[in-house]
Amino acid sequence: MNYAFVFYILGWVLILEGAFMSLPCITSIIYQEKSGIWFLLVALVSALAGFLLIRKKPKNSQFFAKEGFAVVGLSWILMSLVGALPFTLSKEIPNYVDAVFETASGFTTTGASILADVEALSHTALLWRSFTHWIGGMGVFVFLLAVLPMVGGYNMHLMRAESPGPSVGKLVPKVKESAKILYMIYFSMTVAEMVLLIIARMPVFDAICISFGTAGTGGFGIRGDSCASYNAVCQWIITIFMALFGINFNFYFFILRKKFKDAFSIEEVRWYVALILMSTALITFNTWRYHEGFEEALRTAAFQVSSIITTTGFGTTDFNLWPSFSKTLLLILMLTGACAGSTGGGLKISRFIIWWKSIKNELEVFVHPRSVKAVEMDGKTIERDTVKAVSVYMVVFLLVYIISVLFLSLDKFDLVTNFTAVLATINNIGPGLGEVGPCGAYTNLSYFSKIVLIFDMLAGRLELYPILLLLTPGVWKKH
Amino acid sequence: MNYAFVFYILGWVLILEGAFMSLPCITSIIYQEKSGIWFLLVALVSALAGFLLIRKKPKNSQFFAKEGFAVVGLSWILMSLVGALPFTLSKEIPNYVDAVFETASGFTTTGASILADVEALSHTALLWRSFTHWIGGMGVFVFLLAVLPMVGGYNMHLMRAESPGPSVGKLVPKVKESAKILYMIYFSMTVAEMVLLIIARMPVFDAICISFGTAGTGGFGIRGDSCASYNAVCQWIITIFMALFGINFNFYFFILRKKFKDAFSIEEVRWYVALILMSTALITFNTWRYHEGFEEALRTAAFQVSSIITTTGFGTTDFNLWPSFSKTLLLILMLTGACAGSTGGGLKISRFIIWWKSIKNELEVFVHPRSVKAVEMDGKTIERDTVKAVSVYMVVFLLVYIISVLFLSLDKFDLVTNFTAVLATINNIGPGLGEVGPCGAYTNLSYFSKIVLIFDMLAGRLELYPILLLLTPGVWKKH
Repeated sequence: MNYAFVFYILGWVLILEGAFMSLPCITSIIYQEKSGIWFLLVALVSALAGFLLIRKKPKNSQFFAKEGFAVVGLSWILMSLVGALPFTLSKEIPNYVDAVFETASGFTTTGASILADVEALSHTALLWRSFTHWIGGMGVFVFLLAVLPMVGGYNMHLMRAESPGPSVGKLVPKVKESAKILYMIYFSMTVAEMVLLIIARMPVFDAICISFGTAGTGGFGIRGDSCASYNAVCQWIITIFMALFGINFNFYFFILRKKFKDAFSIEEVRWYVALILMSTALITFNTWRYHEGFEEALRTAAFQVSSIITTTGFGTTDFNLWPSFSKTLLLILMLTGACAGSTGGGLKISRFIIWWKSIKNELEVFVHPRSVKAVEMDGKTIERDTVKAVSVYMVVFLLVYIISVLFLSLDKFDLVTNFTAVLATINNIGPGLGEVGPCGAYTNLSYFSKIVLIFDMLAGRLELYPILLLLTPGVWKKH
Repeated sequence: MNYAFVFYILGWVLILEGAFMSLPCITSIIYQEKSGIWFLLVALVSALAGFLLIRKKPKNSQFFAKEGFAVVGLSWILMSLVGALPFTLSKEIPNYVDAVFETASGFTTTGASILADVEALSHTALLWRSFTHWIGGMGVFVFLLAVLPMVGGYNMHLMRAESPGPSVGKLVPKVKESAKILYMIYFSMTVAEMVLLIIARMPVFDAICISFGTAGTGGFGIRGDSCASYNAVCQWIITIFMALFGINFNFYFFILRKKFKDAFSIEEVRWYVALILMSTALITFNTWRYHEGFEEALRTAAFQVSSIITTTGFGTTDFNLWPSFSKTLLLILMLTGACAGSTGGGLKISRFIIWWKSIKNELEVFVHPRSVKAVEMDGKTIERDTVKAVSVYMVVFLLVYIISVLFLSLDKFDLVTNFTAVLATINNIGPGLGEVGPCGAYTNLSYFSKIVLIFDMLAGRLELYPILLLLTPGVWKKH
């Protein structure tokens, strides 16, 4: 492990976090709230510590995949630990474990909350909470790479470690350019949603926070009922934007370049749209009798499907009360998640496509033993190593999942709560079923359970390896 | 597909099933029960149909893996359909879907029952029910290969398709010899259990049925409370024999050859024993307060662990009432299952060992990018193709699991019931949790749900491919 370099990069992360905290500071001035002082203090200390760490650039520039993954894992842990400080110092979330849970949930775009009464928070804290979603959605390194003059082999390692999906395609040959384009798309779409929501008469503060939560596919609401009390037009706008942020950003890149045919032939996107339409239709039909009229049933179903498949986690209803079929369908969408290369979490639809094609291949081998075909996606052959890695990923996922559930079962809740709490955190969704359902919260879990779930949120957002790697003793050796 | 050959083999299967039915016929004479007539009738018709099919041996002996898998899949479906007839004709299980469920549950050694009151059955029906476990445990083709003069390339294909585990090792070069040795071990151990149970004062009829159920790791009880009313010594004997039948039969083969070192160094067996001991200790500790004294707590825990890890499914208590931790631990054991090459079901411990080692390898690659090591088990390198197949297997398993749960959710039960009912059938365990828990039954499920679960039981017992292959259109083409 090249420690000098790792500390150098962590320094940049601290400076960046300090800079990001200026947004809640401004909010506190507007709303005349005194908790802004604590945000300012933490921002300054964080930035100062960062400047101390980056004072001189390390000479040893050995930086491999190992360093890339480890530094990304460490950065996200550090961001959560620092980002939680103002919550605890201002006593808005008095317990530090709770505050870290809330912050990690924010950065990882999970949206699981330990707050029993979210409306008791100040505007300053609410804005920071929602803003962490926005930061975490696109990733902090994508941002760093876009704005900082970081050159050398290591930036690709960082981007690979932080970006979601089985294989990261660079949009353009240069990492810096890719990162800039991504952030431009991300920023524009977020602003578009804010404007539309304000036009649809949502209060400005709500529109900003909800748009941050949608863009990062996070899901922190700022009202006790999440999104239930917004008007129908606002709910439709949120539904559509949640779905849009779950699409592989390559799609938008093709659109920008006017390569419409390329854009609409991405297999993952087609499956994603098909899944949303099909699930919405089935759930609308299955829950019709719970609603007054077709529009309400369709809107509620579409909102929930969009919210769950993109792992956002906003709610307009308590789907805990829905029939088993709709609940099971939502659980399946929780598992699949959105597209790779989007801000959404979950296992990613492209992985399921690769799995499905591998299975078809395995069965083909029986029927035509001599015709071993390669797995193809979007017209390109997927390398055997990718296929293997994707299958191994499922197994790693399952093992982490099982062990987490076992730890949670030491707590006092039932199986549905434990199984869905882990799924909702490791896939960065937010609400589960039972105690942690859309109308519940993670408030009453033990601190041990909360720490397990913090681990799951971070592991899930970074696709397991960067966090698991930190538990491998060999990583910490100097070289 | 070589249809002539397929029908020829199905003929042998029908004859064998007719022969096996002589055992319930004898029982009906001893107990003077008139349902024996129906068993006799079905046995004769089945054997007659079989003889018609094997009249002449087909000339075309083209027989590949495809035919092997398809014929094994078809045989097990046929056996279940025929084996269910006497239940319905004698009106002991009036509905044919229920009867097929019970019979498939028997042959696949699942032990899930649709009977609300098992004690209402005749001795004849009870014996057939338990005997199907014994037949299914070792597999009908292993039997056929042991007793019939079948030579040529196809016998290995049949054995591979029917035997459990990621890779089947032949014990000795000749398939026929391997099959004979396996049956000899199986038969001796079953008789040993019967004798010990009778010495421990279990009624003879019970001892026979329970031993059949233990040997096949099936789990049909013949009393309403499964094994709860047998005395403590009997329960300990059953516990130990359940565990013994879950061990890879290679172990006993080594023991027979006095290769003790080889036997005790099988990694899978060591893990299996460790899992049993650890789980028993944890559950004893966790459920102590539910019992009167240490011996009862230990005995109940050991019985349940042995029963679940081997996917037998006998019960001495209602673990639905246990704390979440113990329930979760049992659910994990339901998932792992027993050793490959044993009569137990589940995903098999050797698969988990291979998965675990693959993950360690993937992480190693980050730490030492240039040292790609092979996955090893029992000192031998596991081929890359096996590693890939094992990973793909998990994905296939998960997809079948998810789709089945979705189908079940159309029924009227809760999530815990649906999720565990599918797990309990696809892994051939028997009892799940909730409605289908150890004190419940599959009685009230809809016929659609029962058909889905019949599919799962067969797919699970044959390790998915032989049954899934039947759904692949390409298989049915003539060649």
